[in-house]
Amino acid sequence: MYDLIIEDATIVTADTKHTVIESGLVLISEGVILGVYDTKNPICGDLEAKVRLNASGKLLMPGIINMHCHAADSLFRGLVENLALEDWLSKVWIAEKNILTPETTYLGSVLGLAENLLAGVTTVMDMFWYPDRTAQAAKDLGLRIATGGIFFDPPGVGERGHADYKKEATDFFIKHSADDFVFPMVMPHGTYTVSPKNLKEAKQLCDHYGGLFSTHAAETQTEQSDIKNRYGKSVVRHLHDLKILGPNTSLAHCVHVDTTEINLIVDSGTAVVHNPVSNLKLGSGIPPIGRFVESGALVTLGTDGAISGNDLDMWMALRLAATLPKGYEMRPNIIDAKEALHMFTLNGAKALGKESLIGSIEVGKKADLILVNAQTIHSTPMFDPITHLVYSTSKSDVTDVFVEGLRIVENGVCTTLNLENFLSQVRSMTSDIKMSLNG
Amino acid sequence: MYDLIIEDATIVTADTKHTVIESGLVLISEGVILGVYDTKNPICGDLEAKVRLNASGKLLMPGIINMHCHAADSLFRGLVENLALEDWLSKVWIAEKNILTPETTYLGSVLGLAENLLAGVTTVMDMFWYPDRTAQAAKDLGLRIATGGIFFDPPGVGERGHADYKKEATDFFIKHSADDFVFPMVMPHGTYTVSPKNLKEAKQLCDHYGGLFSTHAAETQTEQSDIKNRYGKSVVRHLHDLKILGPNTSLAHCVHVDTTEINLIVDSGTAVVHNPVSNLKLGSGIPPIGRFVESGALVTLGTDGAISGNDLDMWMALRLAATLPKGYEMRPNIIDAKEALHMFTLNGAKALGKESLIGSIEVGKKADLILVNAQTIHSTPMFDPITHLVYSTSKSDVTDVFVEGLRIVENGVCTTLNLENFLSQVRSMTSDIKMSLNG
Repeated sequence: MYDLIIEDATIVTADTKHTVIESGLVLISEGVILGVYDTKNPICGDLEAKVRLNASGKLLMPGIINMHCHAADSLFRGLVENLALEDWLSKVWIAEKNILTPETTYLGSVLGLAENLLAGVTTVMDMFWYPDRTAQAAKDLGLRIATGGIFFDPPGVGERGHADYKKEATDFFIKHSADDFVFPMVMPHGTYTVSPKNLKEAKQLCDHYGGLFSTHAAETQTEQSDIKNRYGKSVVRHLHDLKILGPNTSLAHCVHVDTTEINLIVDSGTAVVHNPVSNLKLGSGIPPIGRFVESGALVTLGTDGAISGNDLDMWMALRLAATLPKGYEMRPNIIDAKEALHMFTLNGAKALGKESLIGSIEVGKKADLILVNAQTIHSTPMFDPITHLVYSTSKSDVTDVFVEGLRIVENGVCTTLNLENFLSQVRSMTSDIKMSLNG
Repeated sequence: MYDLIIEDATIVTADTKHTVIESGLVLISEGVILGVYDTKNPICGDLEAKVRLNASGKLLMPGIINMHCHAADSLFRGLVENLALEDWLSKVWIAEKNILTPETTYLGSVLGLAENLLAGVTTVMDMFWYPDRTAQAAKDLGLRIATGGIFFDPPGVGERGHADYKKEATDFFIKHSADDFVFPMVMPHGTYTVSPKNLKEAKQLCDHYGGLFSTHAAETQTEQSDIKNRYGKSVVRHLHDLKILGPNTSLAHCVHVDTTEINLIVDSGTAVVHNPVSNLKLGSGIPPIGRFVESGALVTLGTDGAISGNDLDMWMALRLAATLPKGYEMRPNIIDAKEALHMFTLNGAKALGKESLIGSIEVGKKADLILVNAQTIHSTPMFDPITHLVYSTSKSDVTDVFVEGLRIVENGVCTTLNLENFLSQVRSMTSDIKMSLNG
């Protein structure tokens, strides 16, 4: 007797062979995938489960992995417009300082993470001021989170200094060791906001606790000039020389990189997180996704924060990851739908070092699964489910989300949050947030 | 006694002043907007109507104008992938020849136009093989269409020749004169598929009947080289020398244009139709939307066909129109949300010569209106409705669509089509369509 059988779905496993089962079922017990069968397999007749879910007319795929987010920044969605990163940040930081406390960070984190969840995201890498509050929000909603203490040298939210950040990061590692729902990290903001000494300390802390490391890198030309002026080398070379690159490190953005820098990233096994929506909207540039793919980099996708994006739509990131390189390089075959789908799922799991746990529909992995309605007008006709997911699917097509076998989105409704009440609560903060820009 | 009052909406008029009414109402009788008032106006207490629609929590905006579509090509959505325009067309044309008849063109047109409609599009400019069938589909669904006879010199669908196309185009003009629902046009395919002589004939026909003219232009580098080889000049210069440019002409794509060509377009009052989704996916290039905006061009937006796109999502086109130029030029202020919203609405009306009829919410214009749900998680919080529409809204947020005061989408359901039955009918053609590529 299994806990759950999801049957009659078209299964897009997103495994390394890109296996698709036209009509299949998945067996789940205790949150783990125990079997994946074609409906034609005679074994399917004998299977029993506490719950059977008929998913005909739907695609079943692994939960999406959003590799770069600032969930709580959703409180500031659309507040600051038409500015380049550096000018934009100077305003954003004022608003953040005036609004953010551990309590409002929790609210903002729920807001951003629930938006992710409703779109089919089951794991989020998040960087923000009070990571323990974001981790709590993820736990309450029921999704997985990779996060941890930030490092930030300028005066930031809460007027804390380096020692405070270091303590917070250390405490986070101690609190969240060996947890399948929180993947502990250290997250220095960037090379232009954290000194080489402090970056090294962050890396040492990360290595000491066996965690992950992520930072913003090479997002804008201004950032590159700034780092070249300060250290006489590019952002990526600077990180390389600080011995920060490697398989446990992911770099968000990497918009402005040359071949040498791409090679440093690829050779070290560092993961790249592309955030095309944010990069376009902030005018940072066109991320060279195609060049990274051709170089064999581990490319993953993120939304960045809704304050830059202005939403958290991984499907938009996917569509752009698959089409922007074609347009930018004028080569329609530079990336295909299968590669893009892996950026959305399995590559994120690899970058997190959790490939054995999540990222594809395979026996032994956690049952992090989503159902996608394939009976919509924009899915008719459908010749190939993978092409459909990459080029024609919208976030609103996601009907159900399972994390570790628990159905936390059911027919488009989040079962772990009273969304209407929650959104009213956020809406009541609107005028305060609007005024927060002014001092 | 008015026919309809839509009240308590936030009204984004998209008029030339970008007027937004935080809470307002619109009065409609006989399909025409007779009043637009702020709810605070005392007059609102005395108004009576046969139907009152409370739209609180929603944005009310003009219907979207999709200025370049091949609706019936939705039958081939996702069939041909990873090829550049020219190689892709050679396959597409085989599939089209084997599948398309007037009857299947009607089905495909309903499919494509209904997808437009459900996303809030109330007027579509469409170019396809049997334009009378597409016009009929639009009429049956209840939306406005700009279309007309194509010109195409190579052997095309139905093995027709120039004389047949000319007759069809003439018949179309005769049948559809003076109709507010069909804006008759002539639509030669492009400079690489129609001879200079035939292009001139098309233009003469258009002028004779007082219609509109549209063609594909400067979509790819290959097309530019081809035309330069044949005629010793660029595509736009060629069209200029044939006296085809002007206020009744719109050019789809214009991806590969230099400053001289942009000036020819702007000085002649020719409209540009950007199709960023298709341009990226086909690897045609990045459309220089920002340069056109800065040159004062009349820039409009289109989806192109779902065979290249692979959906018909004007909201995606809008998002890209507003963000791609920022990323491409690395200038976050090169275009703002208000300009992008006009590309989506009023500029289309201007390009159609129907500015007095449609394109904004103003007294005297037709009541082509859409309601957008503003209570979603991705609309919370909302600081500015226009920014929200451009950067955070998805097609699934459109709840209601009115054309000439008739509610043809109601709470997300099309009232003029049994969608489920219709999609089953299309789905039954899937294997035939798949095989159509083979000969």
